[in-house]
Amino acid sequence: MSQFQLLVADIGGTNARFGLVELGLGAEQSNPASGFLATRQITLKCAEHTGIAAMAKAYCAQLGINVPKYACLAVAGPIENGQVKMTNLDWSISIEEMRAELDMKSLFVINDFAALAYATPFLKPHELLPLHQGTADPEAVIAVFGPGTGFGMAALVPDNNDWKILPTEGGHCSFAATNEKEQAIRAFAARQFDHVSIEDLISGRGLVTIYKALGDLASQAVEDFTPADVSTRAINNEDALCRDALETFCLMLGSVAGDKALSLGAKGGVFLGGGIIPKIANFINPETFAERFINKRPMSGYLEDIPVSMIINDKAALVGTAAWLVNHTPELHQAYHS
Amino acid sequence: MSQFQLLVADIGGTNARFGLVELGLGAEQSNPASGFLATRQITLKCAEHTGIAAMAKAYCAQLGINVPKYACLAVAGPIENGQVKMTNLDWSISIEEMRAELDMKSLFVINDFAALAYATPFLKPHELLPLHQGTADPEAVIAVFGPGTGFGMAALVPDNNDWKILPTEGGHCSFAATNEKEQAIRAFAARQFDHVSIEDLISGRGLVTIYKALGDLASQAVEDFTPADVSTRAINNEDALCRDALETFCLMLGSVAGDKALSLGAKGGVFLGGGIIPKIANFINPETFAERFINKRPMSGYLEDIPVSMIINDKAALVGTAAWLVNHTPELHQAYHS
Repeated sequence: MSQFQLLVADIGGTNARFGLVELGLGAEQSNPASGFLATRQITLKCAEHTGIAAMAKAYCAQLGINVPKYACLAVAGPIENGQVKMTNLDWSISIEEMRAELDMKSLFVINDFAALAYATPFLKPHELLPLHQGTADPEAVIAVFGPGTGFGMAALVPDNNDWKILPTEGGHCSFAATNEKEQAIRAFAARQFDHVSIEDLISGRGLVTIYKALGDLASQAVEDFTPADVSTRAINNEDALCRDALETFCLMLGSVAGDKALSLGAKGGVFLGGGIIPKIANFINPETFAERFINKRPMSGYLEDIPVSMIINDKAALVGTAAWLVNHTPELHQAYHS
Repeated sequence: MSQFQLLVADIGGTNARFGLVELGLGAEQSNPASGFLATRQITLKCAEHTGIAAMAKAYCAQLGINVPKYACLAVAGPIENGQVKMTNLDWSISIEEMRAELDMKSLFVINDFAALAYATPFLKPHELLPLHQGTADPEAVIAVFGPGTGFGMAALVPDNNDWKILPTEGGHCSFAATNEKEQAIRAFAARQFDHVSIEDLISGRGLVTIYKALGDLASQAVEDFTPADVSTRAINNEDALCRDALETFCLMLGSVAGDKALSLGAKGGVFLGGGIIPKIANFINPETFAERFINKRPMSGYLEDIPVSMIINDKAALVGTAAWLVNHTPELHQAYHS
């Protein structure tokens, strides 16, 4: 059996997590998913590097290894015509130039939520936390989305024994306020932006915007908090405004989750993922979430049936990149199944 | 060459249009799409019948023919576990029971926007009116949606030489107000409904709701108009409030179209269809529509590239049902391609 070393990464707007997958060690036979586990993981700060190729080289230099010949990188942004656009970093990178520079045999770059979506069939029970019970239709679309630096989204369409990934940009849709409080928060955000998107409110910076909007509405002074400041104070119940902000954020997420499930016809199930979900998973109230998720008359029954789970392994996208690389490279696919 | 008679229908919330497709007459050889044209079309009122089978029998009785052995029916509502749910008619029908009652060899029932979506590759230039120029990515999703009795939506995913249809219920998503005027209209509708959906405002009855909301905002008396009353007066420039209502309706449609294109990643193109589009196609202002469609920072460039067309043939769904029936029934597929 030949052995292959695969470079995988999940490159967000702020951090990039790199790892290595060793294929062909025999572990796949006893546990198919174990072959997709990335070891020697290191997190790099995107802002400290000039681009993705520079980060890949820095990672391999830290490990003292040559750059592997096979890689799959998940990035936060659309990939169009072989060009990677990292929306929040202002990077635009040619995949073919990067492959040539790194002297790789094959290099895939896929959207970070596409990678997360592709990981879902391989996730284990302890990597997921159920939020709403339902019955997944195995022939229907699976939706994966959620807040982090931005609001990512992708869908999986069943395709024989594999999945087709639909990368989407649904986080940039206009935010739909569903009551007067949300309408006031939206109006507060609209002072800054003409178009107020889902991502403008349901993301790390969005949580801070909600916190500031609620302060403004209550004529209460606010601090210059980071997203983590707000969520930590909310979870520890140290600050009423922070708690209100995170509760409102979670309710809005429930409403948006219902909308996305409807737009995609996601009767195969909904997975909430991204950087923030693992941190707030225990804070989200399943009952009030479900109320919002299904409050879409006359489609309440349709949504009631759709199971919703939270991906609480924040390294899950790496599993998806490794699975994608193996399933789309003939020699790796053969090694994996030999 | 054997000859087959196919029953096709497009069954909406108000009207059902039935037709016959004669397969195997040889016309397919010279023009592949002509084989999908339905002749002897008759429109029946749904409310005058007890169900779909009764309408099919009534249609065949009017024509003096036996019920054909093959049929594909497009319906306005979700199809789940072999059960058709006509949301606006309160009908719930088993497809297998209906097939047995009508003594058919094969009976397909698909969502009306799924049929419309499946028709798009076969539509001819005179059946479409371009609304926004762009470059369709042939490997990406095509989105088809628009207002009628409700707000229907479906997507096509490229699948080798065929298309996979994703039926969606995106018209029931929460409506996203994008400015103060829309926020006021949403608030007016929220007096009647707790959850205000896209369909509550962008549909026939939605147009009337917008008209009444604008009257309320201007403290102006309103008439008890039907959707057609409002649109006719708007198009003929006979009533300022009706004109404002239809203009607002079209702008909202532009904004919603951008949201749906983002949620589906519809770089394969957007088609607006449904009962209302053919009537207002010449009223819609391409410039203000495009402004709304692409006003989704930072995704304006992404949306700018997506072509948007209006389906102005109000019988287009019948083309999709015939194409679906032929492509999913071996003996018909063989007759069509022989």
